[in-house]
Formats: sequence, C-alpha cells, structure tokens
Amino acid sequence: MYINRKFYENYISTRDVELLHEYTLKVLKEVGVSFNCEEALDIFKNHGATVEGSIVKFDESLLNAALETVPKTFTIHTCSGETPIGEPFRPKTVGCYGPSKFLFEDDTYRVAQMADMIKFLKLMDTSDVTDFVNNAAFDTPDLDKSQDDFYLPQVAMCLKYSKKPTYGNVANSLNTRGKSLKEAARGIANLYKEFYDIWDKPVLLTNACALSPLGYSYEVLDNIIGLCEEGQPVTIITCSMTNMTAPAALLGTVIQNNATILAGIVLTQLINPGVPVIYGSVSSATDMREVALAIGAPEAQLIQMSSLALARYYQIPVRVGVAGTDAMKPDYQAGVETFMNLMTTYLGKADFILHHAGILQSYALGSYEKFVLDEEVNRIMLRLNKGIDISDTKAEKVFEQIKKAGPLGNYLSGRTPKEYRQEHYLTKLFNRAAGEPNAIFENIGELRERAVKEIDERVAGYTLPDLTQTQKQILNKFLPESEKF
Amino acid sequence: MYINRKFYENYISTRDVELLHEYTLKVLKEVGVSFNCEEALDIFKNHGATVEGSIVKFDESLLNAALETVPKTFTIHTCSGETPIGEPFRPKTVGCYGPSKFLFEDDTYRVAQMADMIKFLKLMDTSDVTDFVNNAAFDTPDLDKSQDDFYLPQVAMCLKYSKKPTYGNVANSLNTRGKSLKEAARGIANLYKEFYDIWDKPVLLTNACALSPLGYSYEVLDNIIGLCEEGQPVTIITCSMTNMTAPAALLGTVIQNNATILAGIVLTQLINPGVPVIYGSVSSATDMREVALAIGAPEAQLIQMSSLALARYYQIPVRVGVAGTDAMKPDYQAGVETFMNLMTTYLGKADFILHHAGILQSYALGSYEKFVLDEEVNRIMLRLNKGIDISDTKAEKVFEQIKKAGPLGNYLSGRTPKEYRQEHYLTKLFNRAAGEPNAIFENIGELRERAVKEIDERVAGYTLPDLTQTQKQILNKFLPESEKF
Repeated sequence: MYINRKFYENYISTRDVELLHEYTLKVLKEVGVSFNCEEALDIFKNHGATVEGSIVKFDESLLNAALETVPKTFTIHTCSGETPIGEPFRPKTVGCYGPSKFLFEDDTYRVAQMADMIKFLKLMDTSDVTDFVNNAAFDTPDLDKSQDDFYLPQVAMCLKYSKKPTYGNVANSLNTRGKSLKEAARGIANLYKEFYDIWDKPVLLTNACALSPLGYSYEVLDNIIGLCEEGQPVTIITCSMTNMTAPAALLGTVIQNNATILAGIVLTQLINPGVPVIYGSVSSATDMREVALAIGAPEAQLIQMSSLALARYYQIPVRVGVAGTDAMKPDYQAGVETFMNLMTTYLGKADFILHHAGILQSYALGSYEKFVLDEEVNRIMLRLNKGIDISDTKAEKVFEQIKKAGPLGNYLSGRTPKEYRQEHYLTKLFNRAAGEPNAIFENIGELRERAVKEIDERVAGYTLPDLTQTQKQILNKFLPESEKF
Repeated sequence: MYINRKFYENYISTRDVELLHEYTLKVLKEVGVSFNCEEALDIFKNHGATVEGSIVKFDESLLNAALETVPKTFTIHTCSGETPIGEPFRPKTVGCYGPSKFLFEDDTYRVAQMADMIKFLKLMDTSDVTDFVNNAAFDTPDLDKSQDDFYLPQVAMCLKYSKKPTYGNVANSLNTRGKSLKEAARGIANLYKEFYDIWDKPVLLTNACALSPLGYSYEVLDNIIGLCEEGQPVTIITCSMTNMTAPAALLGTVIQNNATILAGIVLTQLINPGVPVIYGSVSSATDMREVALAIGAPEAQLIQMSSLALARYYQIPVRVGVAGTDAMKPDYQAGVETFMNLMTTYLGKADFILHHAGILQSYALGSYEKFVLDEEVNRIMLRLNKGIDISDTKAEKVFEQIKKAGPLGNYLSGRTPKEYRQEHYLTKLFNRAAGEPNAIFENIGELRERAVKEIDERVAGYTLPDLTQTQKQILNKFLPESEKF
C-alpha cells in the first residue's frame, strides 16, 4: 500500500474543508453551473435539479446521492493486466499530453509530427514510472485529415505502440465529423473493448475538462455521456486561472473549482450510477504582468492541496498536478517548478498524475529531454514517499553496528551491504561525482547530453508489442495508412 | 508567527521519535562520544560522566539536566537590530559558506579570491531573504598569511561589508597560530561585543561541526568552550555520510547523529548553563558508486526530517539543510535538488538554514548565479508556507464575486485587485511569458543571463554600511591591509 503522506493537511484543515464545502453548496444552489447540452440538461431535470436556460442548480440531496455511488477505487483492465486507481495505490501516471510544439534535442522549437508522437509513445512504453500511454501530440500536420474521423486513427496508435493502458482525450468537432461526439466516444470505448476482448469493465480512462467559471462545453459533455454509458471512467477537471476565469483570491478559485467539478461528477452518476470518476484540478495562478497561466507558481500548489483535501473528504479518486513549469527549457527553473508540482501530487497524494513528465512552458511544449529528466523526479518522489525503515528490530541491529564501529570508527567494509541498497535511490542521470568539474563533464557530459543519450538508448531498445492477428486486424481498420500492419 | 507546517510529521511519528531517543540513550551510555580535549573531558568528569580515555559516556539524568537549561528561543543582537531564532520565528538564513572554488559567470571554475568573497558579501547584504552574512570563501590565496592570526582579518570583513549579523565559522590551527583556539574564539566574540558595544548578549552565531562517528576534534571543542564562556551560541552539527561515517541504514545514521549532537549540546550547558545552542544536522547519503557525499539524495531529506522531529521533541532550535545539490551548474538537477532541500527546511521547519543559497556540487563550489536563483526558491518557500487565506468573512466575499461573474463569466476587471497582489508571488527571474520561445529568449535572455543581470545590478547598487569612527578604528586593527579604512 502507498502511504498517503497527506502533505496538504498542514495547509488545509478539516475546518477549512468544511467551510469550502459549505460555500460550494451555496454556489451549486444559488449560482449554478452551465451545461451546454440538451441531453445533460434533461438528465438533470429528470432528477429534480432546477434548470434555467443552460444553467443547472441543485442542492445537497442530489449531490449526496451522487457521492454515494462514486466508487472509492477502480481498476482499468487491459489484456495484459490491471491498473488499480485510488488512495491505497501508488499514484498512476501518464506522460506528455498533447502540446503541438516540441523542444527538440538540437535546441530548436518545432511543430511536432507523427514520428515525434511515436517517439514519445516509445519513451512512455519503456518508462518504469509511466503507467498509461497517450498521444503526446494531437492532429499533427502530417496526419491524413481527409477522413471524417481522424481522431480514432490517433487513438489506435496508442494500442499499436504499447500494451500499457491508454489515458485518452475527448474527441472534438475538428477531428471527428459526420457523427455526434457521443457516438465518437462510444466508438472509442468499443475499440478498446474489442481490442482487449473485455466488454464489461473499464478499459480506458479519459480526461474531460470543464470550462471556467462554472461550465461545460457541448463537446466535453457529449464525450462524458458516451463514455459513461459505455461504463468508462472519466476525469473531470478544472483548469481555471486566478483573476481571469476564477476569483483573484485563491479561496474563491477553490470554491468555484469544487462546485464545477462536483456538478460534473453528479452528471456522471446520473448517467450511470457507479461509473468510476476522478476528481481533478490543475487550476492555477495567472501572472497578471504577462496575463499568462503560471503553472509553476506556488499558488498553484496551494490550490492543488485544497483539491486533494476536498477529494479525500468526498472519498473520490483524485487527479491533480503535472510535472509543470513555465520554463521553456529543462533549466534550473524547470527543475524547481517540476519538483514543486510533483511534491504536491506524490506526497499529497494524488491518485492520478497527467503530464507526469515531459512538458515545458505550462502546457505549450513537449520535450523528450525533460521527459527523461522528469522521470528522475518521479523516482525521487517515490523514494521520499517510502520514508525511513524504523522498527525495534532494526534499531537493535543498527545499535550493534554503531557499537562495533565505535567513536571515530568507520562503516566502510568490503562489500556494500544489502541495507544500503535497500534504502538508497541511485540516480541515473544526475551528477553525484566529486572532483574537478570540467573533468567530470568531459567524462559524463552535460546533463542535457546525458538525457539525450538516455533517450537514444531507450528508443533504440524499444520493440513493438506482440499483438495477435485479430488485434492487428482491429487496428488496421483505423490506423493511419503508413502505420498499418 | 511563522506556521510550522511540520512536513516531517507524516514521515516520523511520535512513536518513531521515542524509539530514536531510546536508542540514542543506549549509545550515549554504552558506546559514548569521543572528546579530544582535556578541558572538555574534565568538565564531563566533574559532572559525573564516565570518562574512559577520550570517550565520554553518560546517562539520561545528565542529558535531561542539560536539556532543561537550553533556551527554546534566543536572539542575536547587533547595533542595528535583533534577530530572533526558534520555532515561532521565520527560519533565519545565511548564504554560501566557505567553498574554495567558484563557478563564475563565464562558465569557468576557479579558486575564489578575496574580491569574490566581497562580491558574495554584497549579494548577501542586499538580499531580502538572507538574514546573516558570512565568509563565502575562507583563506583565499591572495590573503596575507604572514600574520599569526589571519582568521580575524577575514571575520572583520563581515562587519565592514554588512550590518546584518554574522554566522561564523570556527578558527582553526591553520589560520590561527600563536594562541589557543579557545583564546581565538574569545577574541572573535569580543571583537563583536566591542564593535556593537553590546557586552552581555549573544552577538554572534557560530557553526561547530562534530566528527562522525561520535566525536569532536580539539579544534572545534576549543572554539565551543571559548564561545560558550563568552555567552555566545553555537550550532552543533553532524555531517555524517551513510555507509562511510555512519551506518548504511538511515535509522542508524539518525540514531548516531542524535547521540553525537546531544553530547555536544550537553557540553555547552555544562560550560555555561543556559547558553543558547542550535541542534544541527546536514548528514546525508553516500553514493557508493562514486564513494561521494550526495546532498541531493532523497535519503538526505529523510535524515533531515528525523533531525527536525528530534529537535522539536527536545525543544531546541534546529538547523538542517542547505540549498544543496550535487550538480556542478545551476541546471535542472540543481533546481530539483535545491527545491527538495529547502522544502524540508522551510516547510519542516528549521529555525536556521546555512547555505540557503549559492552552492553547487555538495559543498565544493560557490556560484553567484545560483545564489540569486536560489533566492527565488527561498521566496517560493515563504509563499508556500503562508498558505491560503481561508475565513468565513473571505468566503462570503468570494461567494459574492462568483455570483456576480456567474457561469462562463469572467473576473478580469480594469485594475488588478488588491486580493490578487496579496496572494500571488511574482517571480523576478523565472519565465512566465507565453508565446514563441525564441522571441521570449530574445527579449529576456536565458535564465542564467537573467541571473547575471540581477547580480550586476545588485553589486552596482550596493553601498558600504555607514560605520562610526570608533567602529572603523576597531576594524582597522584587524582588516587586511588593502581593506583598511
């Protein structure tokens, strides 16, 4: 079991959570949430909510009924295994998710192509700290967009390149034409069911982002309805920005987010009671000097801590955070802000982390180098979370060692003891060498050079998953022409 | 009051602390601590400790008597103000401390000269997050070493260049000849007393490092005795390394450190009951592949968390941590490891942080660029620690704002509201700009270029403190020839 270190508890008290909840109820009842979708509005109306135009208002009883049916934990199934999600389990992760531009290893910024997305799939597939794969870039310029649905071909790539489960995005009206987005979402769910030959369990997890303040677009709602009807879990998230799409005060941002997320969660349970759902927030601060999102801001962490505390209060699996930074290169700033973001999520803890590696400049840039560097931070977090092995038996043992070494003695023996290996995380990419810096750089290269070497080795060592003929045939129906088996 | 977020509490339980204490008592009683100083041994003997050669053993009663007299808080006095230290107060900091080599802005590594040490004094003096100044490099090659005592001239530089209090090092037998180190320490204390014209209060805080395992050198002991006799506080610290000078298991390292530190603290109280003392540890992991100290290792944080928990248990002001990294440049690794180190100390919290900015490659390198970048991390920590402003009154206010904006409304108004400025930390050096990266870099430069600009501006804007004629005369007795008034 993963110990929840509850990092947030010293920032958000139980009393604070109760106050946040109380004002959230007021917002849901008196202000309401906009749902731009007739079907969603009908569902709410049929369950006793007040619907005024596109605005839905409801009280505590509807919320409580929904919270009753949300599962505390759930499992994503594939044909190669099960991935449990919830408080008792290690946070589950997925990598770089969807930026259109990448920072490449030659230090240039360019629009990502399909081959770049594939390279990211290979890195995610070979990562020891990445649980889900996804499309690191969507709708790349070299994708054949003549078909009505060029979203499914991209989804199929995840199944071709990795046996890990997929963290999906919602289909949208640009990449899916000629059918409703609800049909598209059901189609995606059914691709996974057919591919895995698993028909009655969650096989896919999908991100569904609210509009702030207090709203949901028809695109996202269509996807939510389709996926929930197929019994597939969604992550309902807010990405509000202080003083822009949320109040200037963090408290206001947190209350507004909570009302927005809970309204979405209520909808999922009205559609399909018991369908798994994740409570999510990546809302952050705005830097008003730049009028820009600042996901590296410390205020973002305070907002995320509140989200963690609230989701735990409601006992809903929770997603917060990203390996986020506002830096444009994997530099000192990137290291600081990535650590800060992952601190909240790993020590917090979140049950799911999107963008757990590989993004820069908020969400605008992908980077292979940052991906492998961020992997190190994920590993450091897992080590921190393990804590110190403290027990009476062990204390007795170390006391004997201290006695044997004695004052001014030493502990260095011929072989490095098992206890050392058990308790020490040995970094792969970070420097630990002492001595003349230039000589060390000559020997191991600069950090980014080490990252590039790691990327090259991983990509070179990657092999395509072994799929059955049936699976290949299923994918061939959708894969881009150049990617068919 | 600074809220202690007690980051460590979710890693080290009260039961853990009690076990650590219990085994520490066993070590003190059955293994003992080596004190390489006749005067110290006599003091222990006179107070009922068992002395076998240089090894001192004592039981709970001597420890408890000493813990009774250690002040929970204390204040350093200068002629320009008071600096309180202890749990209720903001952690106090001092910058880069003593590495012989620096990374310079032209990306070369060179041995530091006196001018470099002075430049660091100017940065520390002009820093909003540095409380104490110190010698960023000791015994530089260009210092006149023909005098018997070339330590006092270096100490005097701190008083010439800043009105902030000084965090001192101990005099040693290389830079102080012709008198005992105890006399040297008393001489330093008296320089401060005379300079400030404050004779009966703590005016100086000094670092005193134990030898691991379980020992104290005569140099450090002579200084401790001299300083305590003058009523001046010392920080007793351990810098043990796992599997080298401490057991391989972190638990063993923590127990051994605790016994070592407590033995030193007992000595201070036997010398001068009630003299302030800081419980300190910067013990860390060894990377056995390099047989090198790894202060950027996550295990170091777990050791520091234990130190924080133990010092709070004993109610002694505590120093842990550094803005430490094993990186050799202010790169991504440096950002990650610096944040991790300062997380434990600021959110932990420590009462004093040495090296709160400006070091690289464990303790081997100083860097101006890293100093100003680390300042950002210190500021981020202070912001994080403040938390979110949550109250009923504020909730009522933000609710009205949410109601006014309504679903899909917006919060951007003509003027940025006071609430925004109150709750948002705006970084000076980190990027927050969105848009085309190359255009942004063209506009604001790379991160290290921004750091250099900040250094240049700070150094250019620095002015020497205004000292009285008497103070100048006092310093002129000691200052290096080229630095006299």
